[in-house]
Amino acid sequence: MESSINCAEEQQPSSVTTNSQQEACRSQMLKCSGGFVLVHAGAGYHSESKAKEYKHVCKRACQRAVDQLRAGALAMEAVTAALVELEDSPFTNAGMGSNLNLSGEIECDASIMDGKSLHFGAVGAISGIKNPVLVANCLLIEAQKGKLSAGRIPPCFLVGRGAHDWAVSHGIPPCPSENMATKFSLSAYKRNKRRMELAEKMDAGQNQTKKRRQSSENENGSGCLDTVGAVVIDSEGNVAAAVSSGGLAMKHPGRVGQAAHYGCGCWAENSFNMNSYSTAVSTSGCGEHLIRTMLARECSAAMQSEDAHQALLEAMQNKFISSPFLASEDRVLGGVIVLRCCRNVEAQPSSNVQSAMVEFLWSHTTESMCVGYMSALDSKAKTHISRLPPGTVPGQSLAIEGGVCRLMGVLD
Amino acid sequence: MESSINCAEEQQPSSVTTNSQQEACRSQMLKCSGGFVLVHAGAGYHSESKAKEYKHVCKRACQRAVDQLRAGALAMEAVTAALVELEDSPFTNAGMGSNLNLSGEIECDASIMDGKSLHFGAVGAISGIKNPVLVANCLLIEAQKGKLSAGRIPPCFLVGRGAHDWAVSHGIPPCPSENMATKFSLSAYKRNKRRMELAEKMDAGQNQTKKRRQSSENENGSGCLDTVGAVVIDSEGNVAAAVSSGGLAMKHPGRVGQAAHYGCGCWAENSFNMNSYSTAVSTSGCGEHLIRTMLARECSAAMQSEDAHQALLEAMQNKFISSPFLASEDRVLGGVIVLRCCRNVEAQPSSNVQSAMVEFLWSHTTESMCVGYMSALDSKAKTHISRLPPGTVPGQSLAIEGGVCRLMGVLD
Repeated sequence: MESSINCAEEQQPSSVTTNSQQEACRSQMLKCSGGFVLVHAGAGYHSESKAKEYKHVCKRACQRAVDQLRAGALAMEAVTAALVELEDSPFTNAGMGSNLNLSGEIECDASIMDGKSLHFGAVGAISGIKNPVLVANCLLIEAQKGKLSAGRIPPCFLVGRGAHDWAVSHGIPPCPSENMATKFSLSAYKRNKRRMELAEKMDAGQNQTKKRRQSSENENGSGCLDTVGAVVIDSEGNVAAAVSSGGLAMKHPGRVGQAAHYGCGCWAENSFNMNSYSTAVSTSGCGEHLIRTMLARECSAAMQSEDAHQALLEAMQNKFISSPFLASEDRVLGGVIVLRCCRNVEAQPSSNVQSAMVEFLWSHTTESMCVGYMSALDSKAKTHISRLPPGTVPGQSLAIEGGVCRLMGVLD
Repeated sequence: MESSINCAEEQQPSSVTTNSQQEACRSQMLKCSGGFVLVHAGAGYHSESKAKEYKHVCKRACQRAVDQLRAGALAMEAVTAALVELEDSPFTNAGMGSNLNLSGEIECDASIMDGKSLHFGAVGAISGIKNPVLVANCLLIEAQKGKLSAGRIPPCFLVGRGAHDWAVSHGIPPCPSENMATKFSLSAYKRNKRRMELAEKMDAGQNQTKKRRQSSENENGSGCLDTVGAVVIDSEGNVAAAVSSGGLAMKHPGRVGQAAHYGCGCWAENSFNMNSYSTAVSTSGCGEHLIRTMLARECSAAMQSEDAHQALLEAMQNKFISSPFLASEDRVLGGVIVLRCCRNVEAQPSSNVQSAMVEFLWSHTTESMCVGYMSALDSKAKTHISRLPPGTVPGQSLAIEGGVCRLMGVLD
């Protein structure tokens, strides 16, 4: 395992993808005042045939966030705008076109975190709402207003029917579930159902339980993990992160994955106290693996080390692939996007101009991960489908890439 | 704030409660082979009039766990047995007699963690199940069996209707919700509802929103936070932790608190790799505060320091009361029970007898916290209602107490 990881990592500097990546990053130096956004359309498997669509939605999501940033919005508004665009795409497993559960219904998870206030909002297993991230954001905003009547503490996490009703009572329009399913998600459901019935029929003829449990280990693959997310830094240096997911295909009704789980789906912390860096993280992949390793928070904590690339590599290796919390798993499937920012890293010759260096990275153990990024000064977003090097094993190897840009602006 | 905490802490060694506590602990030295259990009936406010009931249920819960340990059960079975007893009491805010939500319904959260396998199971906002901890435990057991048919990953966290249906399909009997409400919980609901309506009526006549949000800050008090939980170490040195809660009174339907949240409600980790100590933690208090500080996991991590008492004190102070994540909260309400065990702390003169020192502690910022503890060699449990020293402010001060015993037995 060790060698394949080294291989994956060492191959990148010489690969075409990474070279163009690095050039892209260099060309961004000193021109990203106004903020920066990095989005993902999931860590999983992105077929070449659909690559264009995935890149396109990432591009649109970046554009939405940047539109907000240019209009003077804070990171929270920008990250929400990016998520709405990602959820609205029928190609991603979030909002419209989400995976169907065992009962053929759509239940979504989403969460958002504000690095400035450190508030968090989340919804789990919510049905009939086109943009779950709007509910998570609304929960966060309401909680920031303070206590409810009679001193009641406002919720930060709502699930199921209660979450739906709360959303509607707070002005978020309901959406009939049948409108959220797509031709693709419905046919995937039928295909998965047939496969499940077949697998269960085969198992029934064999030596039960143990056999059933071990059969078709790879059938779930990593094809359906395309949760979406984004991380943003605004011109004031605030960070925010969000994530949204339709969850695993054929999940049990009521199952909640990492996208609704504090510390697991997303994380954002402005620099303060002992934290030299502001950090924002959004994850994707197998929810149970991401929950049990609290990957978002672990990556955020790791980002306080000096070398961001090395820190993320070690976090993905030690806190995820080799995590004692997943010792019984043969394949650990997930991916992260990470952004960090250190204020005033270099003295500016021209006195009162302040600057901050933004480092952005992505890493995944799944076959591929689709990302996009853009600064407020760019004319359009850059997108990229990162893939594990040929010959490496998904769930046991990782890829890691990223870039750096400088944020110039109103930093206090 | 600093001074009142110091005060709270310094007063204890000279208080009657703490002295008797320390004696109790000393008398347990060298006699707790077979395991040890520490339970709580919540951090909140325990009236003198009901003190007897709270202590009684803690005593019974300890006895249940010890019965299991004596019969050779592992920590997971013992902790589950303790929780069932705590949930069954109509006096605690878990299972039977849980707080009613805004709609007058009972929705419960519970979770369990196995320090040996590091697996976790949780249910949130579940209705119509008498013992939510049994569902959490069943989820954990099922997940340990490996993948489901067609390679599907088993869930570790289920909520709402889906959680209920999964439980029933796994042999856990449903219980009509009306059977879970008690005379006490129903009258509390009516009282709370009247108070809420009154508060809203008063606010309506005033300068809206801001006024409404700030009014009656203290009305919720800390009276209704009596979540329950337990931590156990068995004769093999395995630890387990569990927690169960009916949630805040008058919560919004679908609200999920810390009791269902990974890292927030409970935590258990056997000693391995870099961890010198096995640790188990269970929390109680205001769910939103416990979620946003991930208090269970923070306390567990702190317990790897040399001085357990000092480490817990600092964790409660720095990671909870003064946490930057709760900077906007005027009162931070919660409590924890903690157990840690270091194997082979002293060389045994008689060769092959192995021993481990078990340190157990509780700490709370609420007015009071009810705990019970018992080793497998004790004839009955000891119980205690810990209270903040007079004059200190709940949510800004803390109390901390505990003891130590030696576990002799089959440790590998």
